[in-house]
Amino acid sequence: MVGWHGAAGEPTVAAVGEFGLIEGLVRQLAEVPAPGVSLSVGIGDDTCAFLPTPGRELLATCDSLVEGRHFLPAFCSPEDVGRRAAAVNLSDVGAMGGQPRFALVSLGLRPETPVAAVEGLYRGLLAEFSPLGVAIAGGNCTAVAGACFVDVTLLGEVEVGRAVLRSGARPGDALLLTGHPGVGAAGLAALQSLGMGNPAPFPVLAGAYRHPRHRAREGRELGLSGRVHAMIDVSDGLLGDVGHLARAGGVGATVEVEALPRHPELLMAADRLGTAPLDWMLGASDDYELLFACAPGDVETLARRVSAVDGVPVTRIGRVEGEPGVWLADGEGGRHPATGGWDHFREPL
Amino acid sequence: MVGWHGAAGEPTVAAVGEFGLIEGLVRQLAEVPAPGVSLSVGIGDDTCAFLPTPGRELLATCDSLVEGRHFLPAFCSPEDVGRRAAAVNLSDVGAMGGQPRFALVSLGLRPETPVAAVEGLYRGLLAEFSPLGVAIAGGNCTAVAGACFVDVTLLGEVEVGRAVLRSGARPGDALLLTGHPGVGAAGLAALQSLGMGNPAPFPVLAGAYRHPRHRAREGRELGLSGRVHAMIDVSDGLLGDVGHLARAGGVGATVEVEALPRHPELLMAADRLGTAPLDWMLGASDDYELLFACAPGDVETLARRVSAVDGVPVTRIGRVEGEPGVWLADGEGGRHPATGGWDHFREPL
Repeated sequence: MVGWHGAAGEPTVAAVGEFGLIEGLVRQLAEVPAPGVSLSVGIGDDTCAFLPTPGRELLATCDSLVEGRHFLPAFCSPEDVGRRAAAVNLSDVGAMGGQPRFALVSLGLRPETPVAAVEGLYRGLLAEFSPLGVAIAGGNCTAVAGACFVDVTLLGEVEVGRAVLRSGARPGDALLLTGHPGVGAAGLAALQSLGMGNPAPFPVLAGAYRHPRHRAREGRELGLSGRVHAMIDVSDGLLGDVGHLARAGGVGATVEVEALPRHPELLMAADRLGTAPLDWMLGASDDYELLFACAPGDVETLARRVSAVDGVPVTRIGRVEGEPGVWLADGEGGRHPATGGWDHFREPL
Repeated sequence: MVGWHGAAGEPTVAAVGEFGLIEGLVRQLAEVPAPGVSLSVGIGDDTCAFLPTPGRELLATCDSLVEGRHFLPAFCSPEDVGRRAAAVNLSDVGAMGGQPRFALVSLGLRPETPVAAVEGLYRGLLAEFSPLGVAIAGGNCTAVAGACFVDVTLLGEVEVGRAVLRSGARPGDALLLTGHPGVGAAGLAALQSLGMGNPAPFPVLAGAYRHPRHRAREGRELGLSGRVHAMIDVSDGLLGDVGHLARAGGVGATVEVEALPRHPELLMAADRLGTAPLDWMLGASDDYELLFACAPGDVETLARRVSAVDGVPVTRIGRVEGEPGVWLADGEGGRHPATGGWDHFREPL
């Protein structure tokens, strides 16, 4: 992929050195002021410093991307990786109903990495952070011999006592999901089987893998509503995260398989690659959508409120059960433990 | 080094999986409660959450250690690495005069890493964090194929407007230093030349490399004094960080070479290895001591106050100049630009 390997003579991280690299990045950051951000000490001291907003709790999360594992340089440009590194963390703050504020960026770079690649990575970070008013407040660069890594810590805020936890789901609650599950996994599979193409054969899927969207704004809107009982971002695959939400609340959950939103490209790609769509939709997939539980009476209001943010669809995909466990419902009254997989559902789809 | 490679049959990270590993670490953390810590949301949700102390600013810093670069597994046990990862970040918060509060720990681990090694690493983190009341509030684990990494983000607090910056040094200020410069570099050199030994030939030096001390408590004391004009922790070597402090303040600095505290072991090791002591004392060395500037009239009070914390020596090593630049003074009225190195000083020592 163009971007990770520089042309001969292009400056590398080794050539400019750690301090030269940081100076350049600080200049790049200064060109994109984040609106409404008030750091009292910015990059260049031993730590950054800022004044927390009175009446709010601080939220903190970190997530790292490792080359070859969380991104494949053949498919993801440095800018894609920056966007992904920002998005996965924004997703976590959003899933608490919080407002993201400051990021710290820790990079592990091979000495031969072109400076332009690092600038691209930062462009990607800023492309996601700046529209949300998030400032990059500090970080760290180190040389690595093997795989590059990007570790982002994101700090956010939420009104005291209003963080939306994973643990609050109540029996009888409706389970809702933003977006389309499985597009990340389908995107990776399509890229690996069919390559990048020009144009890409499945642009939505490829984009979902290369630079996944986050729902931080939607999560914040849900947090502000005060009507969400529990929320989690889907980063381990839908069934996995339904299980996390259920276990955290000491409850169970049933997913209505026929209710799951199927993205048209996902169905086409499944057909072309000979894959069962549910393998992508229910199995491991980095989608960074929001899964949340609320009273059945709040479903329509909340769905409307979320979709009003940016047009993201919201689907009621199941319900919370009193009995611990995760089940798949088949639409004809049948219910199957999800632990056994979704083989029951393979034929009819 | 015992600790990084498990015996046959010992559980590995791959065997217990990410979630199994995290569950075990959460149990381990629960056994060491950090006093006075109040997380409103701990490990296990999308983010952690805590209530900042009213009237204080938040400080945030991150620093990563990469195997083979920041630690050599031949010399550093997993516990050593945990201690170092904590110390380098505590050092940064201390250098702002702040109080460390919460840490996030991001690990990149090879699948074959024994679970016991990760537990050892966490023991090391807790050994440094717990006495200061710092709680590990979240983190991330990922698999890597090559070098392991540990990236710690540390959050601290400081009274509003009281962070001690690098930039406040004034011409005429005294320059003070805690501890003994160069022991980290000397320790690495001694270990590389002479091995671990039993007993270690230079135990203080070896310890300074394997698990460097931080001066977070001393830095906090200096911050509370309100009499420190500028401060930085020495992580790039003494002359390098004198230069950082000077440049940040738009001033210069003279270091009195004869005033520098020489650790007896460092002198013995230099003799044995045929190295000039100043190469270690002035050059690159991860010492995590504090370098600070204050009015000449405050030197004695501050030195006494710092040493009262834990017995760490404080030495006046030079002065701040109005003219930008860094110089080495030779005690006979001579002054030499530091940029040319310290060859002038090699003979007489």
